[in-house]
Amino acid sequence: MKKIKYGLLVGLSVPVLLLAACGTQQGKIEEVHVVDKNNESVSAQVFAPHEEINQEPVPLEMDRDGTDVYVKMTSQITDIELDDGYMYKAWTFNGEAPGPVVVVNEGDTIHFTLDNMDPAVPHSMDFHAVHTAPDKGFANVMPNEEGTFVYQASSPGVFMYHCGTDPVLTHIANGMHGVIIVKPTDGYPTDDEVDKEFVIIQNEWYKYNDLDDMTHNDPSQVVFSAKALEKGQVNTNGTVGALIDTPLEAKVGDKIRFYLNNVGPNEVSSFHVIGTILEDVYIDGHPHNHLKGMQTVGLPASGGAVVEFVVKEPGTYKFVTHQFDHVEKGAVGKIIVTE
Amino acid sequence: MKKIKYGLLVGLSVPVLLLAACGTQQGKIEEVHVVDKNNESVSAQVFAPHEEINQEPVPLEMDRDGTDVYVKMTSQITDIELDDGYMYKAWTFNGEAPGPVVVVNEGDTIHFTLDNMDPAVPHSMDFHAVHTAPDKGFANVMPNEEGTFVYQASSPGVFMYHCGTDPVLTHIANGMHGVIIVKPTDGYPTDDEVDKEFVIIQNEWYKYNDLDDMTHNDPSQVVFSAKALEKGQVNTNGTVGALIDTPLEAKVGDKIRFYLNNVGPNEVSSFHVIGTILEDVYIDGHPHNHLKGMQTVGLPASGGAVVEFVVKEPGTYKFVTHQFDHVEKGAVGKIIVTE
Amino acid sequence: MKKIKYGLLVGLSVPVLLLAACGTQQGKIEEVHVVDKNNESVSAQVFAPHEEINQEPVPLEMDRDGTDVYVKMTSQITDIELDDGYMYKAWTFNGEAPGPVVVVNEGDTIHFTLDNMDPAVPHSMDFHAVHTAPDKGFANVMPNEEGTFVYQASSPGVFMYHCGTDPVLTHIANGMHGVIIVKPTDGYPTDDEVDKEFVIIQNEWYKYNDLDDMTHNDPSQVVFSAKALEKGQVNTNGTVGALIDTPLEAKVGDKIRFYLNNVGPNEVSSFHVIGTILEDVYIDGHPHNHLKGMQTVGLPASGGAVVEFVVKEPGTYKFVTHQFDHVEKGAVGKIIVTE
Repeated sequence: MKKIKYGLLVGLSVPVLLLAACGTQQGKIEEVHVVDKNNESVSAQVFAPHEEINQEPVPLEMDRDGTDVYVKMTSQITDIELDDGYMYKAWTFNGEAPGPVVVVNEGDTIHFTLDNMDPAVPHSMDFHAVHTAPDKGFANVMPNEEGTFVYQASSPGVFMYHCGTDPVLTHIANGMHGVIIVKPTDGYPTDDEVDKEFVIIQNEWYKYNDLDDMTHNDPSQVVFSAKALEKGQVNTNGTVGALIDTPLEAKVGDKIRFYLNNVGPNEVSSFHVIGTILEDVYIDGHPHNHLKGMQTVGLPASGGAVVEFVVKEPGTYKFVTHQFDHVEKGAVGKIIVTE
Repeated sequence: MKKIKYGLLVGLSVPVLLLAACGTQQGKIEEVHVVDKNNESVSAQVFAPHEEINQEPVPLEMDRDGTDVYVKMTSQITDIELDDGYMYKAWTFNGEAPGPVVVVNEGDTIHFTLDNMDPAVPHSMDFHAVHTAPDKGFANVMPNEEGTFVYQASSPGVFMYHCGTDPVLTHIANGMHGVIIVKPTDGYPTDDEVDKEFVIIQNEWYKYNDLDDMTHNDPSQVVFSAKALEKGQVNTNGTVGALIDTPLEAKVGDKIRFYLNNVGPNEVSSFHVIGTILEDVYIDGHPHNHLKGMQTVGLPASGGAVVEFVVKEPGTYKFVTHQFDHVEKGAVGKIIVTE
Repeated sequence: MKKIKYGLLVGLSVPVLLLAACGTQQGKIEEVHVVDKNNESVSAQVFAPHEEINQEPVPLEMDRDGTDVYVKMTSQITDIELDDGYMYKAWTFNGEAPGPVVVVNEGDTIHFTLDNMDPAVPHSMDFHAVHTAPDKGFANVMPNEEGTFVYQASSPGVFMYHCGTDPVLTHIANGMHGVIIVKPTDGYPTDDEVDKEFVIIQNEWYKYNDLDDMTHNDPSQVVFSAKALEKGQVNTNGTVGALIDTPLEAKVGDKIRFYLNNVGPNEVSSFHVIGTILEDVYIDGHPHNHLKGMQTVGLPASGGAVVEFVVKEPGTYKFVTHQFDHVEKGAVGKIIVTE
């Protein structure tokens, strides 16, 4: 399997960056036109082989045989509407950004296949949930090829996954991130109290391939998305207003559990639910790391948590990162609570 | 009660931002003149109806009847001298920024009244300490009106409070933040060891209504203030040098407790006391979340902590956020320890 | 001993900043020439008395007599090659940046001598590991003088040390930082499982004396270094690629312990080892603060941790701060694991 040499990319311009990502002669950058948020066509440096591509989302495939779990995902180029009329040619897993949530049990063996539908750029999968030698288990899959990898999920938690191909910053920033939950064998001490569960992910977006913004703390959007754990649940991409337009729903008195992860790629998060207190918090989702009564949980980049809280009255509860510069950029969701 | 529609404000200019905040036809922005730190008059975009206003601080009112606590606060426009000669027309609770500390007991019912003395902008109160449906319990109070709200303080800790009216970033950045302490019914395991208690708050200031600075990590000041828990204690606004000019005082051998909160609105904190170690730390002020022997406690935006340390020798002990770019902007205080 | 008056330095230009640091008439700034990363000579504002100086690294001296430990270090001006061909005239302890690791036992009395070889600027030592009145125990040592200080190391952990002379931001940013480990009397509960130990430090570099970059979140490099705990171990300065070019080494099945600290001076860290999970984590290195199964540990500025993980397969394991803007600037190291 062909590998991309890791290179420190300080000071490289974007075209060079993307050529490095591609590692082939076919990788040319051209000025192309995308639609901005005012619905006007503006030029941007889309990677040339992606210019005409917008691949339909492909559903996640999962099968279980005892403790062997077979997971198949795609890496693909799919347009996502980040804000009203603002299309982003995302690099994705399965056509979603964040990608679909993967749920396994502590002790499972994961047989993972990545179908790289990208015609030009190698991709890979780095599951934070597993033990593997990254140069083998997280190796690149070349354009239009498949790769299969096997590893153990030996530790419970709410883990980030992401494309681990260099330059990683570009792959994550372009949309290649998501969450894998490893359910603890003995559960959480508060399992019996929980009424509703959701997976909530925070990520940043940057102007298309703008390495300068990416390395100077200047995301264009900071957003939340929900990923369905069960049929019928809200499932959104990480777009501005997604969880305002399509709120979560609960009943008065419900204890709600969020499986949280802040997938970055750069910023930390200060997660807070307005009008309630995070009664039980498990840092990185490990049952041992149990904190109580928190107003706000700090999440490092790629940090996870299980947070649980009760909604005691009917009404609308928003959740934010309490870094309000990021709320201004979109990082807000809401829960509608009814009798 | 009239509500302000929540709007995502990405890319809006300051005048539009403030008009959105006001939600009325009376909200016009005009170029006005304020005094900068060199004592020269410079133009700034002060909200026009505030231009001539500088309301005297109004004391916090608190009454207790069993477990019912009656708290009355104001929202008001009051000039604060952030740095030598640099006046800031702050949006405040009770004429202080941060506002006065509120102390209640776990299990109390809070009957809270907000008297909005601002003639032009609606304000509200979001106590992180309580459970309530925010669209009701944290609802806007219109200019020159009063609103009363009732809720439980069911979980102990050191909680942020702030104006929750959109755009929240502007309301917090302009000074509408403070701390409410909910004392745990069973106390902290280290209560018997503590000799002195102080409330210490970190916040950032930005150039007046400069949304660009607010959303690009560029505070003009990062500061600490002390809020009196008992009569005669230091009580300062969050201004540059406040806790250098008016230091805290302690005796050799004292175990000092800080009730800490980093009210942001945007930055995280790395709280550290020079010359000592944080012997006992309770994350977000909950007795369960007990860490020991920490050099530095990370506080997310709106994160709290109880931290306790012993000063073993006479001398001067400074405390900082160990993010030294913020120390350069003012985030330093000191304790004078005598025999 | 002459002291430098503490001054808040908001808005001061670099020459004034350095004159403040010097506090003497001899401190003039002149345009001098340094070599940039393209090996070209560029002008920079090196502190004039340092222009011709490049002092050979001096080994750390340590002697023990019972629980009395005698430590002697230097403050000195030494050129460090931060990146290919990019020389930085660092302010250092002992000619290294970070400085050499100091290891003592809980309960030790440290007799510390600082030999200030800098001909122009006072320096000092602030050990986060000790209790002392900072104005005495961390007092300035004048140019070409020595100072001796005595204090207790009463609490176990992985502590930052740094020059505490104002302006502290400049002294740390220029290289005056390192780690002191205080070994717990009763050890860590996982001591028996650990096969290999390393000290890993994260720090940022900024363009030479560029206060604007330092206070606007714009490090030129973010890097890891390793400091030898035992003879023959990797010992590197915090330079781009140091731990890629000179990787750490381990065997399949090893449980590896990192003594971590993020010495800043400004940024927080999200520490992650690719291809494994941090099985045991002790926040700030205190045995009481035991978390398990973490994918990523958040480190505030000057925060420490002991983190332990198992490498189960042969191959190459990189570690990063998962804030990938910082990876682009150099924050990556690797471990080679063989059978």
